Amino acid sequence: EKSNGNRVPPPVVHYHMNNLSSTSDPVGNRETILILTPLARFYKEYWDNLLKLTYPHELITLAFIIPKNREGNAATAALQEQITKTQKTGPEKKRFASIIIERQDFDPPLASQSEAERHKMENQKARRAAMSRARNSLLFTTLGPSTSWVLWLDSDIVETPPTLIQDLAAHDKAIIVPNCFQRYEDQKTKQVMERPYDFNSWQDSDTAQRLGSQMGPDDILLEGYADMATYRALMAYMADDHGDPHMEVPLDGVGGTALLVKAEVHRDGAMFPPFPFYHLIETEGFAKMAKRLGWSATGLPNYKVYHYNE
Amino acid sequence: EKSNGNRVPPPVVHYHMNNLSSTSDPVGNRETILILTPLARFYKEYWDNLLKLTYPHELITLAFIIPKNREGNAATAALQEQITKTQKTGPEKKRFASIIIERQDFDPPLASQSEAERHKMENQKARRAAMSRARNSLLFTTLGPSTSWVLWLDSDIVETPPTLIQDLAAHDKAIIVPNCFQRYEDQKTKQVMERPYDFNSWQDSDTAQRLGSQMGPDDILLEGYADMATYRALMAYMADDHGDPHMEVPLDGVGGTALLVKAEVHRDGAMFPPFPFYHLIETEGFAKMAKRLGWSATGLPNYKVYHYNE
Ligand SMILES: Nc1nc2c(ncn2[C@@H]2O[C@H](COP(=O)(O)OP(=O)(O)O)[C@@H](O)[C@H]2O)c(=O)[nH]1
Ligand SMILES: Nc1nc2c(ncn2[C@@H]2O[C@H](COP(=O)(O)OP(=O)(O)O)[C@@H](O)[C@H]2O)c(=O)[nH]1
Ligand SMILES: [Mn+2]
Ligand SMILES: [Mn+2]
Repeated sequence: EKSNGNRVPPPVVHYHMNNLSSTSDPVGNRETILILTPLARFYKEYWDNLLKLTYPHELITLAFIIPKNREGNAATAALQEQITKTQKTGPEKKRFASIIIERQDFDPPLASQSEAERHKMENQKARRAAMSRARNSLLFTTLGPSTSWVLWLDSDIVETPPTLIQDLAAHDKAIIVPNCFQRYEDQKTKQVMERPYDFNSWQDSDTAQRLGSQMGPDDILLEGYADMATYRALMAYMADDHGDPHMEVPLDGVGGTALLVKAEVHRDGAMFPPFPFYHLIETEGFAKMAKRLGWSATGLPNYKVYHYNE
Repeated sequence: EKSNGNRVPPPVVHYHMNNLSSTSDPVGNRETILILTPLARFYKEYWDNLLKLTYPHELITLAFIIPKNREGNAATAALQEQITKTQKTGPEKKRFASIIIERQDFDPPLASQSEAERHKMENQKARRAAMSRARNSLLFTTLGPSTSWVLWLDSDIVETPPTLIQDLAAHDKAIIVPNCFQRYEDQKTKQVMERPYDFNSWQDSDTAQRLGSQMGPDDILLEGYADMATYRALMAYMADDHGDPHMEVPLDGVGGTALLVKAEVHRDGAMFPPFPFYHLIETEGFAKMAKRLGWSATGLPNYKVYHYNE
């Protein structure tokens, strides 16, 4: 508004989207990235890891979607505290370009959110449908006409290489996923070991296809349950301790704990189906939808990120 | 930036999305609306009609996606000229809250864009897939966390009631479509008559369902072609000259020439499938996808908007 109370004629903003790049040299080309995190629980380790990312922070926008319940309120307060430190008093080059927090509830919330409860098969469909809606809402409202990349990063990813964004982008793939592991203490040896965590990144199998074709239209295939053996090739088991971290494998399903997507893929329409889409939902359905749009997904079995251990 | 060259710590923006409303009284509740127009050709009549809309312009954001070719350049120039007039020198209350123009090409462009050429059946699938990508790109990059409504409005809709937005919103439906007609001059009588234009708003039929079930997975059902009789109930033919303009009918497919959508439907993930989705694409696929997300579509057979006549 002008001082005389008149509305200032707003400018027209023009975007030339064919010129918007997402290349293997995103730093050199000053490509902007949107880091999207659905957040139910806040971990300080997640924030510390985020701060350590060497991708220029002035090219990074952070956006969160947090449920509007008691846990969400606590998580928001904890997040806000760290944001204030980083953006107001922290070193300038650690500050992010902008930060958006969205508060929204999606039914059905589960009574208990323990790891065991979350993973029960019968709970998975409703839970992942709600997660899909949260991801879609966050995506549709924060993706802008000048976003080059979207990094999906769960709030419980507590350890990644600091060069995560550059490393993944260097592969120049439409969709690329590192291997998500979890550190734990071996009961006997008391040594810190690691084990696969995310089983949603896989290569399809004839068995899974056949199972799907025999299902009702609204049934979904789930990975990691003994009573539904899909014989898919899981990226979780393709890791090799001495393997090349640059090794690529094609994927048909992807997990979303850490997932780099060229913004163009989302702009084309690729979202997270909350409904069974070829018997797949959420991030696995996203990979299938991207495929229907002509894009493909790539996994890096030997490039690891780590999930919190409750 | 501060005057000393330091980056100003950017504020965190918080959105409480459960409080964001889209009600039958959008003016009273100061609800923001995003008018989305894929635009290949610019008509002055479209702009004049837009200016006449009585919905408070300060609650309206306009966004366009225009192909980056010669026709698109001409259309952009013509649009820009009108924008400048309205936003800079026109009466203040006619000015819109903000305006975004995105330029982008989506393959495959058709050599000829005459009405006859556009409607040839074999061209429809590729053309409507490209249109879907244009709509998705526009939607994903302009929908914000405080948008209540999205009005899809084709650039060749040259006449609507000035109260279009309020009238449609008053029905308080997730998705609502007026009936799109076209005025023409009768050859013999030289009188101005009207005829149905958009055949994409329909109620499904058993025949169409059966046709779909016999098709290959990548085939699509198209409306308005004699050699593919679907026996769907078309809203185009439900209009009654003396009928109630408030009359509602449930719809399974919708057209996109004028289409009001609660922003929540899109945020949930409803987009315009560029691939066959239950044998449907673009706006018809959108209605089906919204249905899979738990929303439904409504048509107003006796509430008309008018398409340009080439
Ligand atoms: N907005 C939102 N985020 C959630 C919700 N439930 C979980 N999350 C977040 O979504 C991500 C994945 O959820 P999580 O429970 O860790 O899944 P799991 O590790 O696959 O069992 C994490 O970042 C969670 O913080 C929810 O109901 N709403
Ligand atoms: N961005 C973009 N818009 C287009 C393109 N082709 C058509 N349009 C616009 O999309 C809408 C529908 O297209 P139109 O050709 O009128 O379709 P029809 O009336 O159904 O035959 C109109 O607003 C056009 O101006 C295109 O290739 N790119
Ligand atoms: Mn997790
Ligand atoms: Mn048209």
